[in-house]
Amino acid sequence: MESKPQLKTLRDFASFVGGELVGDGSIEIERPTTVGSDDEHGIAFAESTKYIEEAKTRCLGGVIVPAETVDFPSAHIKHANPRLAYLKILHYFERPIEQAVGVHPSAFIEEGGFVHASASIGAMAFVASDAMVHDQAIIMPYAYVGPGCVVGVGSVVMPHAVLVQDVILGSYCTVGPGSVIGHSGFGYAWDGQKQLRIPQVGGVHLGDSVDIGALTAIDRATADYTRIGEGNKIDNLVQIAHNVELGPHGVYASGVGIAGSTKVGARAMLGGQSGYADHLVIADGVALAGRAAGLTSISKPGAYGGTPAIPIADYMRMVAAQKDLPKLVKRVRALEKEVKTLKGEE
Amino acid sequence: MESKPQLKTLRDFASFVGGELVGDGSIEIERPTTVGSDDEHGIAFAESTKYIEEAKTRCLGGVIVPAETVDFPSAHIKHANPRLAYLKILHYFERPIEQAVGVHPSAFIEEGGFVHASASIGAMAFVASDAMVHDQAIIMPYAYVGPGCVVGVGSVVMPHAVLVQDVILGSYCTVGPGSVIGHSGFGYAWDGQKQLRIPQVGGVHLGDSVDIGALTAIDRATADYTRIGEGNKIDNLVQIAHNVELGPHGVYASGVGIAGSTKVGARAMLGGQSGYADHLVIADGVALAGRAAGLTSISKPGAYGGTPAIPIADYMRMVAAQKDLPKLVKRVRALEKEVKTLKGEE
Amino acid sequence: MESKPQLKTLRDFASFVGGELVGDGSIEIERPTTVGSDDEHGIAFAESTKYIEEAKTRCLGGVIVPAETVDFPSAHIKHANPRLAYLKILHYFERPIEQAVGVHPSAFIEEGGFVHASASIGAMAFVASDAMVHDQAIIMPYAYVGPGCVVGVGSVVMPHAVLVQDVILGSYCTVGPGSVIGHSGFGYAWDGQKQLRIPQVGGVHLGDSVDIGALTAIDRATADYTRIGEGNKIDNLVQIAHNVELGPHGVYASGVGIAGSTKVGARAMLGGQSGYADHLVIADGVALAGRAAGLTSISKPGAYGGTPAIPIADYMRMVAAQKDLPKLVKRVRALEKEVKTLKGEE
Repeated sequence: MESKPQLKTLRDFASFVGGELVGDGSIEIERPTTVGSDDEHGIAFAESTKYIEEAKTRCLGGVIVPAETVDFPSAHIKHANPRLAYLKILHYFERPIEQAVGVHPSAFIEEGGFVHASASIGAMAFVASDAMVHDQAIIMPYAYVGPGCVVGVGSVVMPHAVLVQDVILGSYCTVGPGSVIGHSGFGYAWDGQKQLRIPQVGGVHLGDSVDIGALTAIDRATADYTRIGEGNKIDNLVQIAHNVELGPHGVYASGVGIAGSTKVGARAMLGGQSGYADHLVIADGVALAGRAAGLTSISKPGAYGGTPAIPIADYMRMVAAQKDLPKLVKRVRALEKEVKTLKGEE
Repeated sequence: MESKPQLKTLRDFASFVGGELVGDGSIEIERPTTVGSDDEHGIAFAESTKYIEEAKTRCLGGVIVPAETVDFPSAHIKHANPRLAYLKILHYFERPIEQAVGVHPSAFIEEGGFVHASASIGAMAFVASDAMVHDQAIIMPYAYVGPGCVVGVGSVVMPHAVLVQDVILGSYCTVGPGSVIGHSGFGYAWDGQKQLRIPQVGGVHLGDSVDIGALTAIDRATADYTRIGEGNKIDNLVQIAHNVELGPHGVYASGVGIAGSTKVGARAMLGGQSGYADHLVIADGVALAGRAAGLTSISKPGAYGGTPAIPIADYMRMVAAQKDLPKLVKRVRALEKEVKTLKGEE
Repeated sequence: MESKPQLKTLRDFASFVGGELVGDGSIEIERPTTVGSDDEHGIAFAESTKYIEEAKTRCLGGVIVPAETVDFPSAHIKHANPRLAYLKILHYFERPIEQAVGVHPSAFIEEGGFVHASASIGAMAFVASDAMVHDQAIIMPYAYVGPGCVVGVGSVVMPHAVLVQDVILGSYCTVGPGSVIGHSGFGYAWDGQKQLRIPQVGGVHLGDSVDIGALTAIDRATADYTRIGEGNKIDNLVQIAHNVELGPHGVYASGVGIAGSTKVGARAMLGGQSGYADHLVIADGVALAGRAAGLTSISKPGAYGGTPAIPIADYMRMVAAQKDLPKLVKRVRALEKEVKTLKGEE
């Protein structure tokens, strides 16, 4: 890792992000913060009028505002792209958990398990006999790398994560704390008296740069692989069932569930607690609103909402109409009465 | 802990709860049970007519009934508040998991990690180098207390719970088995080709007396803290995203999801699988029915239901109207026909 | 375990499943696969016309097709029941995680904890002082078997699973990775100022042959037991609250939530993210569609959908009508106009 510059004052940070300092540059900045706080040593950013106005009322160490901002009362940095400048500051303050290269004495590597000399195996971690941990990978305390699993270059398996069996991680992936990758898919068949287990003998394959959050489950395939394409970002408490295939560069928010064998296209955006039923094919570029559930295949890119999911504009119209449904019932009742009158029945 | 009295018979329990014994006081009571069981050594309580009638038909060791109950056929205890009396009995029978004070030989405390002499660190637990475990706190087997974490006085971190980084627990909190507090918030930005990770450098702050269930995730803030107010009770499999703030004394049932930066007021009551979208502000005293999803800020206390959430009375009317929707369609069709007839078109 | 035959070629597999070989029997088969792949050493099955047609276009090692199939262009096996034949092949290829009988040196058995001589306790597993692990049971790395827990004959507790306290597993059960069985039920009572915890002193009882997936939570009862009947199959990320009782042989998909004290009948089928509210009684043979939420007791077998759940046929009609709701609003508006005209008001 390159050595970081030592930044202490608002002046230092203005220069670090390439912005224009306005006001007292000697204020000490100790951490990033958000506009809502009164941290006199914190630095925040404000882009919209709403947040800029709120920032004016707070006692912040400094604020990054758009270059065209005028009449800002306290010390600040003007920048063409405040969000980007703030991102740079977040990177500056990030403090990754450090773990020494090599195998911790309390870790357990089964005979035949491979650990590259540049990898790091933390306290009480486990690597099974035919598993492989490649260059610069980091296996954190209590992580379990089971039989047939491969952890690619620079990938991180966080505390208590479990790679059950036959899980292949690409390079620079992260598996969050407590997540379980490669448990048996949920396959049973009723034999007339009980549920028979269908053996799940496939694996899970993650492309490069996939991030998995905490407490997420991705099941191994019945045969072949459950596949998570390159660059996918998956949040906490998500369920990806057996034989699912996710196209590259999707974003799956917390609580999402994808049922068995469904294939989702590239650049998917799934809102919280949304999901797809099993055996569907979903086009590239499909977004699901929070709570939406796709129950049939979708061939057209765009945003969808509701259960079952329909194009989002239709969904919004439906929701508006639903809210007025009790009124509609009254209007129909009134019409019925009027028609009766017109027919001379009342 | 104070020493417990030794209670053996229904007479002992009647005296313990300050109730009036009716019938055979020599029956041996070995455990609490529920009205539905036939446990001859179990004690249950029954408040409503329905449960009192059911209790009459069961072979229980004893039942606590309201003081005014008459004609109860078997041995029982009359009490002004049966539920409270039963609560006292539950406390009597509770048998907390015991763990010796001090550090278990198989635990791993990184150099510089602080553990108070009155705290207890269980088998194979982990305390990072700049973490602190305060007086009488209990860290159970496999629990991970990461860098920058603080476990307050008397707090309990249960088996396999993970405090990832910069997590501050107040006093007398409980973090349930397998829960993950302080994992990186889910922040990404599309750069035109891939999702860029936004570093999450804030922490999580829990007030005093917060209970977290099993397998719940609370993410660290982008900057500043994700804040869980004093006295909150959070169930299993709940998601609390980065920079969320929960006011004090709320109850969050299983499956709830709160999206990023939303501020929930005091005494919130969230039913199972309900939730809030991101960046909302919710007033004190707002309750969400099970499955409800609040998609806009709520400024008025009260109960809400549906997706998007609306006042519960409106929701109930809407649900009723929805159920009758196919009938409404038929009524509209009939009206159209009649109007055509009236217009002389048919 | 009986020794497996050594199968190498398509001919070997045809004979193994009792099917009729058609074409080149010398093709080497190395693993099962699915119809969508082009694995030249993989074997798949195809039952429906759709999949048979797709299989014709792929470079598979072999395909199992219905006995009556004609004109299949590449090597295949004809079989009266392709699915059953494939199931046999999946069993052949299954490679259960092996763990030596006995107690791993890094495991921790508290004094008084019982482990049968034929059981296997993996690396860094924990067995509490008054817990029991019976014949041929397998406790995998990091699994926690807490006080008062009993693991029945041949049951498997997978890595990082937690049996908190007073959890009784029948014979041949599986508890998946990271699942938490026996954590305190979510019981609180508002005392006017704060939420008081109601002690949960009951346990959890699992019948024989119950499978629990990954990251599923089953809470201990307030008193008595939370009961999971024989043969139930429960997926990942499921919540079963305190004092719930599940009848035998049910199937509960991922994301399901069953609230406190609800009794579900035999042979239940719950779709993904569905659930029941608390204190309900559900008949035998009730199925819930994905996302459905039963809010009242159900006495009639059959399938239900929606929130609140209604008979599935009614639900389908309601969904169809909802989709057309904006059109219905327009029809009512048109009617109102026509009626006004008829009344001579316009």
